[in-house]
Amino acid sequence: MEHTTNKTRRRLLATAGGAVAWAGLGAPAFADSTEPKSQSNPGPVSDARPLPDYAKWKDADSLIVHSANTIETRRTAFGSSGITPLDRLFVRNNVAPPSSDIVKDPDAWQVKIEGVKNPRTFTVAELKNLGVESVAMVLQCSGNGRAYFPHDPSGTQWTVGAAGCVVFTGVPVKEVLKATGGMADGMKYMTGTGGEEIPAGLDPNSIMVERSVPLDAIEDALLAWEINGVPLPLAHGGPLRMIIPGYAGVNNVKYIKRLAFTQEQSPANIQQNSYRMSPVGVKGTTEHDSVWGMPPKSWINIPSDPEQPVKAGKVAISGVAMGGMSEAEKIEVSLNGGKDWKEAEFIGPDLGKYAWRNFVLVADLKPGEYELASRVTNDDGETQPENRVENNRGYLNNSWRDHMVKVKVV
Amino acid sequence: MEHTTNKTRRRLLATAGGAVAWAGLGAPAFADSTEPKSQSNPGPVSDARPLPDYAKWKDADSLIVHSANTIETRRTAFGSSGITPLDRLFVRNNVAPPSSDIVKDPDAWQVKIEGVKNPRTFTVAELKNLGVESVAMVLQCSGNGRAYFPHDPSGTQWTVGAAGCVVFTGVPVKEVLKATGGMADGMKYMTGTGGEEIPAGLDPNSIMVERSVPLDAIEDALLAWEINGVPLPLAHGGPLRMIIPGYAGVNNVKYIKRLAFTQEQSPANIQQNSYRMSPVGVKGTTEHDSVWGMPPKSWINIPSDPEQPVKAGKVAISGVAMGGMSEAEKIEVSLNGGKDWKEAEFIGPDLGKYAWRNFVLVADLKPGEYELASRVTNDDGETQPENRVENNRGYLNNSWRDHMVKVKVV
Repeated sequence: MEHTTNKTRRRLLATAGGAVAWAGLGAPAFADSTEPKSQSNPGPVSDARPLPDYAKWKDADSLIVHSANTIETRRTAFGSSGITPLDRLFVRNNVAPPSSDIVKDPDAWQVKIEGVKNPRTFTVAELKNLGVESVAMVLQCSGNGRAYFPHDPSGTQWTVGAAGCVVFTGVPVKEVLKATGGMADGMKYMTGTGGEEIPAGLDPNSIMVERSVPLDAIEDALLAWEINGVPLPLAHGGPLRMIIPGYAGVNNVKYIKRLAFTQEQSPANIQQNSYRMSPVGVKGTTEHDSVWGMPPKSWINIPSDPEQPVKAGKVAISGVAMGGMSEAEKIEVSLNGGKDWKEAEFIGPDLGKYAWRNFVLVADLKPGEYELASRVTNDDGETQPENRVENNRGYLNNSWRDHMVKVKVV
Repeated sequence: MEHTTNKTRRRLLATAGGAVAWAGLGAPAFADSTEPKSQSNPGPVSDARPLPDYAKWKDADSLIVHSANTIETRRTAFGSSGITPLDRLFVRNNVAPPSSDIVKDPDAWQVKIEGVKNPRTFTVAELKNLGVESVAMVLQCSGNGRAYFPHDPSGTQWTVGAAGCVVFTGVPVKEVLKATGGMADGMKYMTGTGGEEIPAGLDPNSIMVERSVPLDAIEDALLAWEINGVPLPLAHGGPLRMIIPGYAGVNNVKYIKRLAFTQEQSPANIQQNSYRMSPVGVKGTTEHDSVWGMPPKSWINIPSDPEQPVKAGKVAISGVAMGGMSEAEKIEVSLNGGKDWKEAEFIGPDLGKYAWRNFVLVADLKPGEYELASRVTNDDGETQPENRVENNRGYLNNSWRDHMVKVKVV
């Protein structure tokens, strides 16, 4: 491990169930023994933190429950089929989700459209008849990979599993604009407001999930009611979610109740201060870049368990690679910690520029220790860097070195 | 409806739960009331036939259980995301599945490779290190659409739901051939043998699931251990399944225990007599074409409930379209029973030539009755025909007229 013992210990605790996140709730810290014996074939983890009610339908064995609002996919549970199974997909809520009543009659959910020539409210049923499009895309929490930052940023200690590749289906925002007479003059941002309840007495800006993105994002944006072929569950923002392919998770506002084209960015703290790329030790402000588009990133999933030796001989080394805002074009794998690189192969269908691709390199491995790393290059010629971009809250970690795994071959 | 009243009645019963298939088992015919009130948002169907144990994890509300070995997806439950959710995917077993013990340690499952220079047995764990590939493909029962044949062929009365589009991951058969020294001389077929138990005292050929396909099929064939990102469940042929993209379901042998390159087609009845395109009234023999490659086919899923009127105005008409052995290139929709056609749009990512694509046409519909049909044209210039190819057992129905739906707009 590349960090201090304390950091390692903290990360293990976090991985085992988010002890750090839960400490504030008075829950006991979990012992390391809550980690399953084998990551590559995890059995039931009887003493793991339970899934929250709204996510009870998920596959507990494939997930690490950090807290009721932060649930991570195990590194060995992504599969090799491009699309992440819904019951293994991570969950991250900024605020506790609304009542599950809102997904009982999803077609009845309403969204207000503002900042257009003819503002109006649509039900989901109405949106469904305006137009339909699907997009395969990586949904990734801005803080995925935070556990690898050495300065201990606050927030969930995600390793690789706050990410998945899914298919969203909904109406293109462009069709919604057509149906409302087009954008009003002078607008600069597309702003989505989440349907979370704001507790009485609180400043709404302190808790409201409202995110603004540049107008470029309209091109591929959807208001989505379906994920992986099923109605969008509450855990993933149903009945209706703002979908902005290529943009970090937080911008994909859940239970969207208002879609507005605005002159300014949202006044909510989540826009003004959080999700900003401020230097370590510096609080985020609008002077720092907002966490919008994602950079290229890849990591190896199998083998990835340092505790489970791999049998010498031919070994299929596999993982996932995303291009960020443009298509993943090339994927390389290193067996020796980045000294040498060999091109690996993408497998399966190409799901488009916002999706990730599975990759594989079959290597003939003799007994010994290996440091397995991967790095992707996208269609814009951007290559995943060796080092993370340091920032106060630990966002957008795409360092190939941080995501490297040590395996023993016997 | 285009057939006789009796046929229509029979089809309705079949849709409601396979009364015909079960009649022989002494089960009572189901009343039409077992259909959920709304197909577009089906609620629990309390008096429906239960899912068999090996498929208990499936979403009962999205499925029609014809029998313990034949389970169909409801027409409105396919979703619009390209990939069919696993818990909504149809099931069709030719013989009752083996014990679920075989999927407890999937890596230990063994398959014999014969008809090669160096015959040997591989475990799934060994196959996983030979190479990895994924393919998105339509998995479709040969008898899907049988309910629309007017001569009442025996077999499950599938309407549209014995089909789905899924991603299989496994080792290319080409890699297995490389690892076994290549094919032995003089072979003409690739033959897969299923792992079903053969009851003592029976002629194995009468029950054995063993299918032979031409060697061309090797090109894209896999031995697959994963479906839609998860280990292949027993219901879908786990731990290991022969996958031949473009070929009808029966050729994708489940729980494969032997992959052989052979000079002759399998002597099993399922190869010699069943799955043959023999004329109506004539038993199949090797003189009739075997059910191998699938033809182009499409159908509309939404709206598709004749009992549920559609609100006048803009209506998104959507469905699925497959090209068969080559890519779906064009999709047309008719609102008036095939008199006029209008090109519709494919939506979502192109998952490759063996997958289906969702399509949509937004039409402005005035009150009235509509006969909605779709027809696909593939990359080879083949267009889905108006009429089915008549055959004794009701295989490979791709008639656009048979799959047409009547809807009322109010």
